[in-house]
Amino acid sequence: MRPIAILSVLAGLSALTSPAASAQDRPPRPPAFASPEVTAEKKVSFRIHAPKAEKVQLSSSDLPDAGRGLDMTKSDEGVWEATVGPVVPGAYRYSFNVDGLAVIDPRNPATSEANNNTFSLVYVPGSETSDAKDVPHGAVAEVVYPSQTLQRPRRMHVYTPPGYEKGEGRFPVFYLLHGATDSDASWSTIGRAGFILDNLIAAGKARPMIVVMPAGHTGPFRFGGAGGVSFETQMAQFEQDFVKDLKPYIETNYRVIADREHRAIAGLSMGGAQTLNVAFGHLDEYGAVGVFSSGVFGITGGPNGGAPDTRWEDAHKSTLDDAELKKGLRLVWFGCGKDDFLLKTSQATVEMLKRHQIDVVSRDTVGGHTWLNWRDYLVEFAPLLFQGK
Amino acid sequence: MRPIAILSVLAGLSALTSPAASAQDRPPRPPAFASPEVTAEKKVSFRIHAPKAEKVQLSSSDLPDAGRGLDMTKSDEGVWEATVGPVVPGAYRYSFNVDGLAVIDPRNPATSEANNNTFSLVYVPGSETSDAKDVPHGAVAEVVYPSQTLQRPRRMHVYTPPGYEKGEGRFPVFYLLHGATDSDASWSTIGRAGFILDNLIAAGKARPMIVVMPAGHTGPFRFGGAGGVSFETQMAQFEQDFVKDLKPYIETNYRVIADREHRAIAGLSMGGAQTLNVAFGHLDEYGAVGVFSSGVFGITGGPNGGAPDTRWEDAHKSTLDDAELKKGLRLVWFGCGKDDFLLKTSQATVEMLKRHQIDVVSRDTVGGHTWLNWRDYLVEFAPLLFQGK
Repeated sequence: MRPIAILSVLAGLSALTSPAASAQDRPPRPPAFASPEVTAEKKVSFRIHAPKAEKVQLSSSDLPDAGRGLDMTKSDEGVWEATVGPVVPGAYRYSFNVDGLAVIDPRNPATSEANNNTFSLVYVPGSETSDAKDVPHGAVAEVVYPSQTLQRPRRMHVYTPPGYEKGEGRFPVFYLLHGATDSDASWSTIGRAGFILDNLIAAGKARPMIVVMPAGHTGPFRFGGAGGVSFETQMAQFEQDFVKDLKPYIETNYRVIADREHRAIAGLSMGGAQTLNVAFGHLDEYGAVGVFSSGVFGITGGPNGGAPDTRWEDAHKSTLDDAELKKGLRLVWFGCGKDDFLLKTSQATVEMLKRHQIDVVSRDTVGGHTWLNWRDYLVEFAPLLFQGK
Repeated sequence: MRPIAILSVLAGLSALTSPAASAQDRPPRPPAFASPEVTAEKKVSFRIHAPKAEKVQLSSSDLPDAGRGLDMTKSDEGVWEATVGPVVPGAYRYSFNVDGLAVIDPRNPATSEANNNTFSLVYVPGSETSDAKDVPHGAVAEVVYPSQTLQRPRRMHVYTPPGYEKGEGRFPVFYLLHGATDSDASWSTIGRAGFILDNLIAAGKARPMIVVMPAGHTGPFRFGGAGGVSFETQMAQFEQDFVKDLKPYIETNYRVIADREHRAIAGLSMGGAQTLNVAFGHLDEYGAVGVFSSGVFGITGGPNGGAPDTRWEDAHKSTLDDAELKKGLRLVWFGCGKDDFLLKTSQATVEMLKRHQIDVVSRDTVGGHTWLNWRDYLVEFAPLLFQGK
């Protein structure tokens, strides 16, 4: 092919990519730059071209100095820049705040879907546990299943381990739930669940398993309640959909080992509370339970203190005290950071379960209510599953 | 659970979702509104809160009136709004242009990844072919495979038909390639390939098949050439990776029927040119070929006319004239819109193939170089595959 002919085709394609402005008022071509840029020293530079803006900040819950907004500096060409780090290897969500407007990085196609919005995503390599390494990889699928509970098709993500698609073998199933600010895509984007499992399985540390990541919200959800359906109703709908629709779909359509010993459930934050509801509502079905940065919501009393809320304990009392039923419960694992605002909730739930003679592995870690911890908890929890101990 | 206790937990979570501003300089809470909003009449309203902006436009290559930017109107509360339609049911990418800055919709978590950026995505229901209907659904997976060609792990998307994960049966494989402005995620987001196949299979119109959607770019790619590696090199790398890495990975790891009659390939725009390279470079392996809005790049000569470029034809002459080889080529299908800037390229390629006594089904349609056409072409092409005619 002649380069000049190819250029002609490319010029035509190029015109399609900037449909916003007509020829006469099209702004000058923005300067060439990359964003994000990760250096060998694990520093990360972020850049955005916003020549008219008065103030631009980098915003990221997990990147150093960016939790409350990090001021970016403007170049003569109108490119704002900020550099952070060196940072711990792993995945980071971020956005820019341009004069009050939350904006993802226009130069970065990688994103991570959350509850009501999408963040930009940068991966800083160097992690033994979450890098995309040269090992056999599983597949992470978007799957739409029919929900009788909600009377509509509903999406989940499903990790199948390396080799699954060849068609041989049956596998244990681990249900992994997200938090209130996230979606069913979050565990496999910012959470790196697929890569973490790939690496654990390749190292012989975890058993090959199917990981099912449901959608935790059953409808629009906003803090403050503008979503229409109450939080309590959504929690009840989630549990019913999970029990009657999602889990049966998995057990009908995937090659699973469908017994208690080969079925585990864990979740973070809101998903931890949902995990407790599902597991202790159907304890004959789950052999392992994980609660990350969470517990029974409200167990420590109201915002101004007050009496501990014993409703959950009262509602599940017969299960909590059923010695025969508890025999098959091989693992109850709690992890929470010392700076987590749900630490007391987590601790009170652990104490409550212990009062009912349930063995609980409780891991107190550093850090707060962040994905930095939840990835680590997954790395620690998954190897404990389905080991026949 | 006591509502007040839950509210306490939610308030803690809520603080995590707005990390950009510290308490003292946090702007007032933006007004409540939804975006996008699709009405029963298939009108779509878009809204963004940008009180300081001077000019905001809706930008979308496929939505009516938004191709060159549609001015939005500002409310007293600083919410900009525009309404388009009624529109043809289907998926639409869009973004906002806020004082020159391309911004996705902060209120919409649905996105569609492109080559160098990500767009917001809205789905307007009402399509027989691309709605998420109450039919059995396949799974669309992100799969990472090792590329010896590029010496790194590489991502593709793979659609497996309903029931595949149960582990029974072998299936034909359809390789489906994206264009230069897109990524391997595009066919299953804006392209709705999974839902289109689900609906065709449920209606008995298409045979259950695996659809493999590779990444068409082998490195950073920008129009104008700032990507580092030339377009020609990327095209050659793509073909080598496809032949030596991706296709063998699929045939080793999936339950495929690995013969010519059960292997098809198609692509749009750049992917159409790649399709021609792969198929006519290895014609003993492909029984069906589809070229959407494309052809041999440059075949009609340079941008100022000039002699037709016969290099591709010359390079593939022995294949094009091998009568025995052509017997197993059951379908060559071209589709192009009359307003497409690649129409002449498409037509010249069809004429060239016909000169070599190759039967070509050539569909001239309305419209241009857009996903509105590419989804329709897939709906028409997929049922023609693997029918044993």
